[in-house]
Amino acid sequence: MKAIRTDMDIPGEVLAAVDHGGSLGRARTLFPQAPEPFVDLSTGINPHSYPLFDVPATALTRLPEQARADELAAIAAAAYGAPSPANVAGAPGTQILLPRVYALAKLGRAMVLAPTYAEHARAARITGHHVTEVSDFGALGDADLAIVVNPNNPDGRVASRRDLLELATRLKARGGLLVVDEAFMDAGPREESLAGDVEQGGLAVLRSFGKFFGLAGLRLGFALADRATVARLAGDFGPWAVSGPALEYGIKALADVRWQQEMRKRIGEEAARLDGLLARHGVEVTGGTPLYRHMDFPEAGALFRALGRQGIVLRHFEDRPNVLRAGLPGSDDEWQRLEAALAGWKNEP
Amino acid sequence: MKAIRTDMDIPGEVLAAVDHGGSLGRARTLFPQAPEPFVDLSTGINPHSYPLFDVPATALTRLPEQARADELAAIAAAAYGAPSPANVAGAPGTQILLPRVYALAKLGRAMVLAPTYAEHARAARITGHHVTEVSDFGALGDADLAIVVNPNNPDGRVASRRDLLELATRLKARGGLLVVDEAFMDAGPREESLAGDVEQGGLAVLRSFGKFFGLAGLRLGFALADRATVARLAGDFGPWAVSGPALEYGIKALADVRWQQEMRKRIGEEAARLDGLLARHGVEVTGGTPLYRHMDFPEAGALFRALGRQGIVLRHFEDRPNVLRAGLPGSDDEWQRLEAALAGWKNEP
Repeated sequence: MKAIRTDMDIPGEVLAAVDHGGSLGRARTLFPQAPEPFVDLSTGINPHSYPLFDVPATALTRLPEQARADELAAIAAAAYGAPSPANVAGAPGTQILLPRVYALAKLGRAMVLAPTYAEHARAARITGHHVTEVSDFGALGDADLAIVVNPNNPDGRVASRRDLLELATRLKARGGLLVVDEAFMDAGPREESLAGDVEQGGLAVLRSFGKFFGLAGLRLGFALADRATVARLAGDFGPWAVSGPALEYGIKALADVRWQQEMRKRIGEEAARLDGLLARHGVEVTGGTPLYRHMDFPEAGALFRALGRQGIVLRHFEDRPNVLRAGLPGSDDEWQRLEAALAGWKNEP
Repeated sequence: MKAIRTDMDIPGEVLAAVDHGGSLGRARTLFPQAPEPFVDLSTGINPHSYPLFDVPATALTRLPEQARADELAAIAAAAYGAPSPANVAGAPGTQILLPRVYALAKLGRAMVLAPTYAEHARAARITGHHVTEVSDFGALGDADLAIVVNPNNPDGRVASRRDLLELATRLKARGGLLVVDEAFMDAGPREESLAGDVEQGGLAVLRSFGKFFGLAGLRLGFALADRATVARLAGDFGPWAVSGPALEYGIKALADVRWQQEMRKRIGEEAARLDGLLARHGVEVTGGTPLYRHMDFPEAGALFRALGRQGIVLRHFEDRPNVLRAGLPGSDDEWQRLEAALAGWKNEP
């Protein structure tokens, strides 16, 4: 009996934690003198969450009902534009899906369109792929597994649906797989989503619930793919993959089209407001999505530290010191604190 | 580039859903005329949940903090008796852990001590193992991957810690792995738990939060193993594996030793009460744990149907028609309905 698990020999650094935004613990370590509470702009999570409500006690006490999971799949299919509920695999967050989706591809050359969310490369390596990060979309055509975040995090770069479909077709012809992470697609440009195209095969689309709906703690994400792939993922996760609370929130929020429309308008306006505020203080926004703004300029590190000392935490990328990402403030108080901190930042040491 | 994913060729029946207790949808299909609400005794989930409380809004809206996950690992290690928090991998339920833990073993002969919880064999097959179900503990010594549910579900059979350690040592010597599913060990016999022995390697212990604490909808489970294995599992799950609500409940409930002590006493008494009630109606309990009682007798199917028609749902095993499993009623009303239904069951058609 031969052991063929290549992942038994993964070097430690592959397993090492990737640095992420959204950690108050990390913020406190970086800025121990900062006034609390922190204004956490280090993620792209919507600060205006879907309205909280009391889930029924049975959502906690009982095993999640398959009928409820089916209902969520149907509502998610409609919300995302997937061909059918059978094209939707629900999961406890998108993160946990990554190695499972990458394990669907034959082991070979994985290419990640970079720079992007670092967990993709890590997860693909864990799964046993040889991973390359490429900056040129055209290079992806040579991959066995191609990974594109669309729109991209952090710079907001958008790949067109047409280009992605062409790439998927090319990869599929050689038994390859294209994975498109549409974690921030809820805010648009939704016409570039590949959710409606997944039944053609050779393609998996990842959707995140927690970001746009501002409920990242719930852990809810989806893989959209052809039916056979979804059945395989569902078989791997087994019954009860999505928690009772996540089922309740997912069903209600994904069906609430009006809330989604109003939220898209609201965060669009707030992103513009943030751009204006930054511009007034000499900082040009160079990309992003409505849920996060991207800045690429030499003083990025200085601004990160200046704001951090005042308890305003942006996301700074250690491997790209010129890049900053800023999420939306969630309240008048947070806007005011940001504005006050920006007013003096150039005068700080 | 060679495709070595054996799991690409899994026959459909392996992926097919296993029948489980705990589904009201299934109960309604089986017993459409039954009076509602159902008294659901089809699981081994404690009907007396840990007291519900309001989790902070940030447990839903923010990404779970690593510091909070570390706290849960420390409290779980203490509660289960694991050597250290580094021996504890938290996960969104035990179910989702199964293929991940089985993927840690070299592909080969997997043996499940059976009959038992059916998901083990299914998950091991999905992972690529050749799975045999054996009824003799001694046969497990020839496995590359041996799986024991302890105490066993549904019959409550207990394997001794000494026998299991001997088996683990034997398997480890040949690079094998012993997985002990202690999903129902919270109710005892805890001196047979292998939680304290996992650092020796070749051994993984699964613990379920939702059953004893009556919070199955939260989705929280743990794998206890040596540090290297836990690091690998944590790397696979990535950050934020456990939801915010599950972190809050896990931290509070696993630290609440007094509640646990009182609950062990309570369910012990209630199990004895259930045995007495069944005995008075001619049904002998032949095994189980405090959270479920096991009956093996020729009229099991008749009793299942008679009670089901009155809205009392037990767990009947299609492949073992003489076997019934009954969980604990959760209220006086449920006890009375069970008693009333039992009073007439032999007179029914």
